[in-house]
Amino acid sequence: MSRLWDKGAPLDERVLRYTAGEDHALDNRLVAYDVRASIAHAQMLHAQGLLPAADLEAIRSGLTAIAVEHARGEWQVRLEHEDGQTALENLLTQRIGEAGKRVHLGRSRNDQVLTALRLYLRDAADALAAGVDAVAEALENLARRDASIELPGYTHMQQAMPSSVPLWANGFAAELRDDAQGLRQTHRRLRANPLGSAAGYGSPNLPIDREDTREQLGFETVQMPVTAVQLSRGKAEAQLLFEIALVMQDVARLSADLLLFYTQEFSFVALPDAFTTGSSIMPQKRNPDVFELIRGRSATAMACLAEVMGIVAKLPSGYQRDLQLIKAPLFRSIDLCMETLDILPAALAGVRFRPEKIRLDPSIHAAAEANALVVNEGISFREAYRRIGERLKQDAGKTPK
Amino acid sequence: MSRLWDKGAPLDERVLRYTAGEDHALDNRLVAYDVRASIAHAQMLHAQGLLPAADLEAIRSGLTAIAVEHARGEWQVRLEHEDGQTALENLLTQRIGEAGKRVHLGRSRNDQVLTALRLYLRDAADALAAGVDAVAEALENLARRDASIELPGYTHMQQAMPSSVPLWANGFAAELRDDAQGLRQTHRRLRANPLGSAAGYGSPNLPIDREDTREQLGFETVQMPVTAVQLSRGKAEAQLLFEIALVMQDVARLSADLLLFYTQEFSFVALPDAFTTGSSIMPQKRNPDVFELIRGRSATAMACLAEVMGIVAKLPSGYQRDLQLIKAPLFRSIDLCMETLDILPAALAGVRFRPEKIRLDPSIHAAAEANALVVNEGISFREAYRRIGERLKQDAGKTPK
Amino acid sequence: MSRLWDKGAPLDERVLRYTAGEDHALDNRLVAYDVRASIAHAQMLHAQGLLPAADLEAIRSGLTAIAVEHARGEWQVRLEHEDGQTALENLLTQRIGEAGKRVHLGRSRNDQVLTALRLYLRDAADALAAGVDAVAEALENLARRDASIELPGYTHMQQAMPSSVPLWANGFAAELRDDAQGLRQTHRRLRANPLGSAAGYGSPNLPIDREDTREQLGFETVQMPVTAVQLSRGKAEAQLLFEIALVMQDVARLSADLLLFYTQEFSFVALPDAFTTGSSIMPQKRNPDVFELIRGRSATAMACLAEVMGIVAKLPSGYQRDLQLIKAPLFRSIDLCMETLDILPAALAGVRFRPEKIRLDPSIHAAAEANALVVNEGISFREAYRRIGERLKQDAGKTPK
Amino acid sequence: MSRLWDKGAPLDERVLRYTAGEDHALDNRLVAYDVRASIAHAQMLHAQGLLPAADLEAIRSGLTAIAVEHARGEWQVRLEHEDGQTALENLLTQRIGEAGKRVHLGRSRNDQVLTALRLYLRDAADALAAGVDAVAEALENLARRDASIELPGYTHMQQAMPSSVPLWANGFAAELRDDAQGLRQTHRRLRANPLGSAAGYGSPNLPIDREDTREQLGFETVQMPVTAVQLSRGKAEAQLLFEIALVMQDVARLSADLLLFYTQEFSFVALPDAFTTGSSIMPQKRNPDVFELIRGRSATAMACLAEVMGIVAKLPSGYQRDLQLIKAPLFRSIDLCMETLDILPAALAGVRFRPEKIRLDPSIHAAAEANALVVNEGISFREAYRRIGERLKQDAGKTPK
Repeated sequence: MSRLWDKGAPLDERVLRYTAGEDHALDNRLVAYDVRASIAHAQMLHAQGLLPAADLEAIRSGLTAIAVEHARGEWQVRLEHEDGQTALENLLTQRIGEAGKRVHLGRSRNDQVLTALRLYLRDAADALAAGVDAVAEALENLARRDASIELPGYTHMQQAMPSSVPLWANGFAAELRDDAQGLRQTHRRLRANPLGSAAGYGSPNLPIDREDTREQLGFETVQMPVTAVQLSRGKAEAQLLFEIALVMQDVARLSADLLLFYTQEFSFVALPDAFTTGSSIMPQKRNPDVFELIRGRSATAMACLAEVMGIVAKLPSGYQRDLQLIKAPLFRSIDLCMETLDILPAALAGVRFRPEKIRLDPSIHAAAEANALVVNEGISFREAYRRIGERLKQDAGKTPK
Repeated sequence: MSRLWDKGAPLDERVLRYTAGEDHALDNRLVAYDVRASIAHAQMLHAQGLLPAADLEAIRSGLTAIAVEHARGEWQVRLEHEDGQTALENLLTQRIGEAGKRVHLGRSRNDQVLTALRLYLRDAADALAAGVDAVAEALENLARRDASIELPGYTHMQQAMPSSVPLWANGFAAELRDDAQGLRQTHRRLRANPLGSAAGYGSPNLPIDREDTREQLGFETVQMPVTAVQLSRGKAEAQLLFEIALVMQDVARLSADLLLFYTQEFSFVALPDAFTTGSSIMPQKRNPDVFELIRGRSATAMACLAEVMGIVAKLPSGYQRDLQLIKAPLFRSIDLCMETLDILPAALAGVRFRPEKIRLDPSIHAAAEANALVVNEGISFREAYRRIGERLKQDAGKTPK
Repeated sequence: MSRLWDKGAPLDERVLRYTAGEDHALDNRLVAYDVRASIAHAQMLHAQGLLPAADLEAIRSGLTAIAVEHARGEWQVRLEHEDGQTALENLLTQRIGEAGKRVHLGRSRNDQVLTALRLYLRDAADALAAGVDAVAEALENLARRDASIELPGYTHMQQAMPSSVPLWANGFAAELRDDAQGLRQTHRRLRANPLGSAAGYGSPNLPIDREDTREQLGFETVQMPVTAVQLSRGKAEAQLLFEIALVMQDVARLSADLLLFYTQEFSFVALPDAFTTGSSIMPQKRNPDVFELIRGRSATAMACLAEVMGIVAKLPSGYQRDLQLIKAPLFRSIDLCMETLDILPAALAGVRFRPEKIRLDPSIHAAAEANALVVNEGISFREAYRRIGERLKQDAGKTPK
Repeated sequence: MSRLWDKGAPLDERVLRYTAGEDHALDNRLVAYDVRASIAHAQMLHAQGLLPAADLEAIRSGLTAIAVEHARGEWQVRLEHEDGQTALENLLTQRIGEAGKRVHLGRSRNDQVLTALRLYLRDAADALAAGVDAVAEALENLARRDASIELPGYTHMQQAMPSSVPLWANGFAAELRDDAQGLRQTHRRLRANPLGSAAGYGSPNLPIDREDTREQLGFETVQMPVTAVQLSRGKAEAQLLFEIALVMQDVARLSADLLLFYTQEFSFVALPDAFTTGSSIMPQKRNPDVFELIRGRSATAMACLAEVMGIVAKLPSGYQRDLQLIKAPLFRSIDLCMETLDILPAALAGVRFRPEKIRLDPSIHAAAEANALVVNEGISFREAYRRIGERLKQDAGKTPK
């Protein structure tokens, strides 16, 4: 047990591992986006007379082939590449020679990474929003299916007013529809083209046309001035993480309700077998693990947001290497949310309400009765409230709660 | 020193203090908004035949007078009122008698509080956005004033490329303009009318017209279904806190730059006397306290967001008393941001760049020179980079860094 | 509504308010500790020949009188004092003239504030630990009182194994006893004397005897080297906030259990009237607000920790004004924890378990039966588990859950 | 780009992946500890007459062989095992048959996991403390090596008082020594034996001897009552994460100083080539990436703490599946801290101070001069301060800052 961590590795290797971190693994999801942005950049260079047609053609076909092979799983970014950008540059140069180096004119890894990331995040935000809408739809289906099942409505976890499965399910559905819109709104912080800002101060002496790459890549505007680009690192990312945290919080609260409803004491619902697990020492039990894990993962989503904002906090302007650390919590949160959304519709489709077990306390109609008194007798609500309260106390007799 | 906390108070009083918390102090800023929403509610009740014209008139003039007196500082919500809603109800009833109780038909404190809060947050978001724009404008003015002053552009806190005061100041200005838009976007989560959802399950037996109050109060839609209202508690609040955290992070990073520039070693700027303070034991020093406090307060803004999201986390649906705790971190963050924005324009107007002290390392032009080589000699950037690197090494001679 | 924040105040006043912040209000609790440390410092100065006996006597009696008057509520630190240190210096000088200024030799506000804070935190940690122990005791009393009441033991919120009120209450009590020890352990980070480190670099040319003040003030060691003092700012504070967060988390989980037990569906407990509140629109309800607020305040405690660690994060060494901001979240968390501990014993004493309502599912004994099979028949647990599982399935017949 | 996430997998597989999460990968580090605890448990069962000698022997030699093979890398916990406990049980039963199942008597996965985790965390805390001490030692070596090099001492990032490399380095060393003690103190929350608490309610009908396993495994006490065990989940973990966060914050602040000292404007230090990296577009630059990444990773460490506390927050008592999620942030933070500590001593050994570049502002001696005036002329410090201040103003003449 004495060697918990292997310090035997040579210093260089340890430093490489420390600086490269998990980048190689994380960058795999950016490869296709980086290729797309690199081709757009090469096309712009050519249009500006900075890249011969033959080189452009070699770069375009080389990168396209590399991307196809990556999508097929024929290669992966690995630690020895350090990161995806270096991997692409090395593979391209191996394949097409010197021309492969010409694509790096007028850009830096700083704007290259950020461009690929924004392209990816636009897709991720849309995929997440679609996933949230699918959960909302599952809830709306549940509401339709069990349209006539009554539920107690709770405040302070106490039975308060009559409610129903539709009111319960559609309340969550409405909030999730709203969350999906929130996710889509993150496009606002992803709409500006960072490409061409290079290391954050542009490319003096080069006729870089940022409007050209903007159009090719489908950005709405060119991010200006160039110094704003690195200052904006982490902000679109944080907004997406914030919206994911709200989604996870909503489905965690949905799970909290279902976990409550699934207790023997409530017994309001049965859960589908595929979403519960057995106990290792109690043969009679089916545990609602999926919903517990959704509840727990809402804390992870929140921590990812705190991590990204903490990484950026207080940094002087200009690119700083710390910013590279944003990717890990960003992708962690995107993935956990996507995986959650991916199983929730099936889980919700299997939730079975048990009307025979759902008991509404008779006093739950007190407010409605008070309202009727107001309308019928013209007294104030406060007075009606007092009268109903009196009656309930008498009814309760010797067993007041 | 033995009695750090007074446990001598009677239990009732301690429980009141525990449950009412700071509500009384916090609710003062909501009084005007609550009055506005209460009058709208009363007008709707009258239109629906649930409130006689005379009562409506008494309520309207009573509440209006109470609001005016509050604005004049003639009364404040105090602990014995518990909260602003109770204060208003009591004052109104003292003033107009039984009619004062009639305004509470078809609503609960839950929707009442939330309505006042949303009205307030709409104004707060606008005021904050205007404050952020004013800081951006101050930066743009600085950029114009010192248009010709060169600055080093940094990456990794190392001189990297030539920059300038305009590039530096306008980069931050652009990000702040973006933040102001972010603040304004929080209106999306403030656009739905919660009034009439009562305790979260509507008002059975009462013809409440939520569309009527929506129109009176300037909401875009009615929040539906009623169960969504309490589920949405904390979400608009969190979004505003998130956007405030981004603003504070940007001005904290601006402050980090200025604190760096203000060191004796940089000496790039002088700061206005009104924004620095003296030392108690070092007579020669002027300390940049304001910028340090801005940097520090960015952590408070982030913590307020975490607090609100933590309060809501994992709660079962339906109103829960925990939600009351949102107001304290919400107002804390709004206030600290507003106070920061309020002094920054004057502080920035007083920043004086000292071009005589700003030294650009000669090597800072290396990338530009490499670019020129590419354009002029048609070699690849990687090759140009190699050549410039060689030359710099020779120039540096025996004093390489 | 146009003027949400008053920008009318003159710049100076706004800057003062921004830099002084809430210090004046917060510093009141430090006055007695500051006086104690100041007298110790003066006595050391005298012993070192740096302060005449008459001045020492004037300082000692002046400060003592000022502290007594403060304890009696005859004066308070106010905004115009900026902070407690300035208030004390001004009041002392008004009272005893020039001698009042002589106490500031060989110290800075930096070490002065920190010394008072550590003295206060030692008391606060002890008071909190005592408060936690009192809650543990209340739980142990409950365990003794209801020693024979059975409860279901839950895992995954499902009935799993037989438990009891003593097992339930004593489990929490044991954790709280552990938390109290954790609070007491924060003394380790409060044990070193910061006084005499001045602004963080000592007092050249002065024979300051830090060992003397260490002994007078009851510190275990002198904090060395002087540069460590400002680096340690925020660490003892964070440890105390961490331990408070664990306490609040434990009592929040206790509250989560009680809120569950108090639902109509469980009905395992009745709560004392003094700790529940009525509803404004549902006359029949008693809401368990106190326990909801404890649950909610656990999020505030966690946010206070994040705030303090965020304030300190990434700061270069040496005193920075940001550190002043630590006091607000520190005191906020101490107070909310103390107030929670202050009402919990009475609340727990009033909790009444309702054995007539507590139902253990018959299958809850399955694991015990499987264990008996193992012991009696010598089969493996896995086999016994299988057999009991079979039997339970048959018993459940057509209503399996 | 349309299929960001593969939803093609069958539901069962997706649910397995969702519930098992990263457990398989994470559990590898617990295998050796789990084997150790399982053997202790088996020995206790045998001593209590619950396990025949032959079975014990088979279990002991089987588990030992499995652990040896795991240490040699011959097998790994994989997703299809779900987790380390299941992997061990399956491998053991494949190897020794039915006897392999007998080790699971009188324990549950809940106490099994926690026991292995506590054994691991005891080693991790010690390894981290040793790593922190090694960094402190590197700083102390630096202090000795450059004992005579002066540095400015800063407050508010302004030159304030004379300091030196030893004062600077030893200040950080002292804080790190203190952090190492803090790490060692986490043993207090790791000292109690959870084994035998089973699912949290003990093992009725079985003569489990928890004192026996306590002694075998080197715990100080048996954790009592059994219900406290699951309530304590996350608390030792959080304490370790808290102490790691303080360590990371201290080395991040050390890095912030070095990043400042490494700017061209300060030029106080040169950094070793092995710890800096080149720029992709600026041939002249050496970037201090390692120190930037240390600064950035302090935010990750803080987020891991927030994540763990967020996972546990508000959970009702008794085991909940959410608790499984603690491992990921726990191990993430332990690893990042260990990797940081692993390279820092070499990095610090290579830091070279450049006395020829270090400039102390003449006014930096003002406080010392004022002190001398007090001692020599018997005036008050406030008066001496005034006189020195005057003189400095005159000296500064036309170049006031």
